[in-house]
Amino acid sequence: MSKFWSPIVHALTPYVPGEQPKIQNLIKLNTNENPYGPSPKVIAALQAEAADSLRLYPDPDSSRMKAAIAEYHGLQTNQIFVGNGSDEVLAHIFQALLKHDHPLLFPDITYSFYPVYCGLYGIQYETVPLDAQFEIAIDDYLRPNGGIIFPNPNAPTGIPLPLAEIERLLQANKDSVVVVDEAYVDFGTESAVALVSRYPNVLVTHTYSKSRSLAGLRIGYAVGDAGLIEALIRVKDSFNSYPIDRFAEAGAVAALQDDDYFQQTRQQVIAAREQLVSNLRALGFEVLPSGANFIFARHPQYAGEQLAAALREQAVIVRHFKKPARIADFLRITIGNDTQNQVLVKALRGVLQA
Amino acid sequence: MSKFWSPIVHALTPYVPGEQPKIQNLIKLNTNENPYGPSPKVIAALQAEAADSLRLYPDPDSSRMKAAIAEYHGLQTNQIFVGNGSDEVLAHIFQALLKHDHPLLFPDITYSFYPVYCGLYGIQYETVPLDAQFEIAIDDYLRPNGGIIFPNPNAPTGIPLPLAEIERLLQANKDSVVVVDEAYVDFGTESAVALVSRYPNVLVTHTYSKSRSLAGLRIGYAVGDAGLIEALIRVKDSFNSYPIDRFAEAGAVAALQDDDYFQQTRQQVIAAREQLVSNLRALGFEVLPSGANFIFARHPQYAGEQLAAALREQAVIVRHFKKPARIADFLRITIGNDTQNQVLVKALRGVLQA
Repeated sequence: MSKFWSPIVHALTPYVPGEQPKIQNLIKLNTNENPYGPSPKVIAALQAEAADSLRLYPDPDSSRMKAAIAEYHGLQTNQIFVGNGSDEVLAHIFQALLKHDHPLLFPDITYSFYPVYCGLYGIQYETVPLDAQFEIAIDDYLRPNGGIIFPNPNAPTGIPLPLAEIERLLQANKDSVVVVDEAYVDFGTESAVALVSRYPNVLVTHTYSKSRSLAGLRIGYAVGDAGLIEALIRVKDSFNSYPIDRFAEAGAVAALQDDDYFQQTRQQVIAAREQLVSNLRALGFEVLPSGANFIFARHPQYAGEQLAAALREQAVIVRHFKKPARIADFLRITIGNDTQNQVLVKALRGVLQA
Repeated sequence: MSKFWSPIVHALTPYVPGEQPKIQNLIKLNTNENPYGPSPKVIAALQAEAADSLRLYPDPDSSRMKAAIAEYHGLQTNQIFVGNGSDEVLAHIFQALLKHDHPLLFPDITYSFYPVYCGLYGIQYETVPLDAQFEIAIDDYLRPNGGIIFPNPNAPTGIPLPLAEIERLLQANKDSVVVVDEAYVDFGTESAVALVSRYPNVLVTHTYSKSRSLAGLRIGYAVGDAGLIEALIRVKDSFNSYPIDRFAEAGAVAALQDDDYFQQTRQQVIAAREQLVSNLRALGFEVLPSGANFIFARHPQYAGEQLAAALREQAVIVRHFKKPARIADFLRITIGNDTQNQVLVKALRGVLQA
């Protein structure tokens, strides 16, 4: 606390990201990173950027990157906004599009950064409870609002919402922006990008941190109607002219050019997830249906905190949320490679038999 | 304009950065980039980052980078804040520390991003005129304020303010934060970092985009009292957990380890500046005293817009500001390498003799 702080700073409750331990040889299944590295073609493109040209600013409009993303989705470049990770993109979205007289709506169990952004920008919000199956119930959002945001698949549940339900929401909710945060969409969930050219108020966010194996490079983007994108560009150009560095732009373009690698690695993750779900159910776990690169699971006889601590003793780190109480017994477990998943299952089996 | 925009977006006037032309073979002296590339040791460190580890998030606290910067300045890591370019660092400073009941003060001729940040965060401000010599007059800032910010050397004038004047301001102004934006300090201006441990309300910002030859990598930082830094961390952790990617952290650390290269290149730029100032004065230009890697110059017989256009016809790009009227006849010219500076002088001589 300090007289020098702007008043809003005193009230902030910052987001706490998953731990990034500096210890080697951990099985790190806590922050939903991809078990496979980026495409070799991406590595080559990045090596080429380590050059004298780093003395020059990057393109402030990231034109090559926007063109590559637009082509990938069959859209125009004025429907694309890019940022330094999808967290930055989301921050700009909250400030540019979600601050209105009516409250913003989002699920009570969801990405815990959403209320933090509301605190940063002074945005009123109301949370909408997930239903008894931990699913988003669209009917509960059909009321006056200053915007709606949810991840699809939702986090940390992993449960996907069918595209038809999102379209039903858009048909009923025409006066505010609906943001579909598709950080995990490439692992088997239907994308709402298909709706962007038909609804002027839907915005879809993607990240390169999960399915593109580039969490270390910080790339995210939003796609939507050009009118929504213009608001984001105005805020970005009032915040930082050059958020995308030369490596990020080169990596973003190269990753989209190696579709074979992308398809192969995401299918490997999906297959490993199905195997892991099957193994955990055999151990007595309840596992929510997942369209993501993680699963959300609880065991009827063990507290979540207890299981997370027991795994950590065996050098396996998963994510556990103490709040809200309704999910306190769940573990959020990132899908690793086959070896990592086997170590996890073996460790859990050991805990359950102890 | 759109009903979907948050109200504040309608009123924004975004910053317009210097042009980043996509044409080759231009003499680009318009955005104050370094004519010399980054240290070969930096290039090597960056090449090593193009690896499988990019699948993992970077350290959200950028601990190695903060430790390296702290050691370089003889400070503690809790006195260091890092960001995705100094523009991002400045944005967080405006939001976290400069929004108070009294208006923020800054010079009428200065970095034109400052009023843009005020618009983004709803900060009241007043501009303080430079004196007749285009210098910052400290006495004009000795009045109630919610904060004070100026670059040192100032931009676009390039004129340095002596450290004793900054200390005099800090002694008289104890109730608000004084931000000294030292983007260009390494080219011959005294740094206020020396005051950080004695005054709890001074914050100094630096960038790697100029003297470190890494504009393409986006690295900036602030140094100040731990109480000020804490406010910045709270805002950063409410905005983006991972603003510094793996390349930026590796490059930032490696650049500080090659002090010989840093000293050599900055001395070359300083020497080239003195030569250029001498050559332009010989052509009849008035050149303001510069402690930066650019100069601000006007010719008594030629309009600034006319000179800038004539240079562009000869493929030399400099920066010209139409407003305010008092500087409309000046050109801001980045110090290039010897060849570039010779081409510039030759082109100007041609224009003057035409």
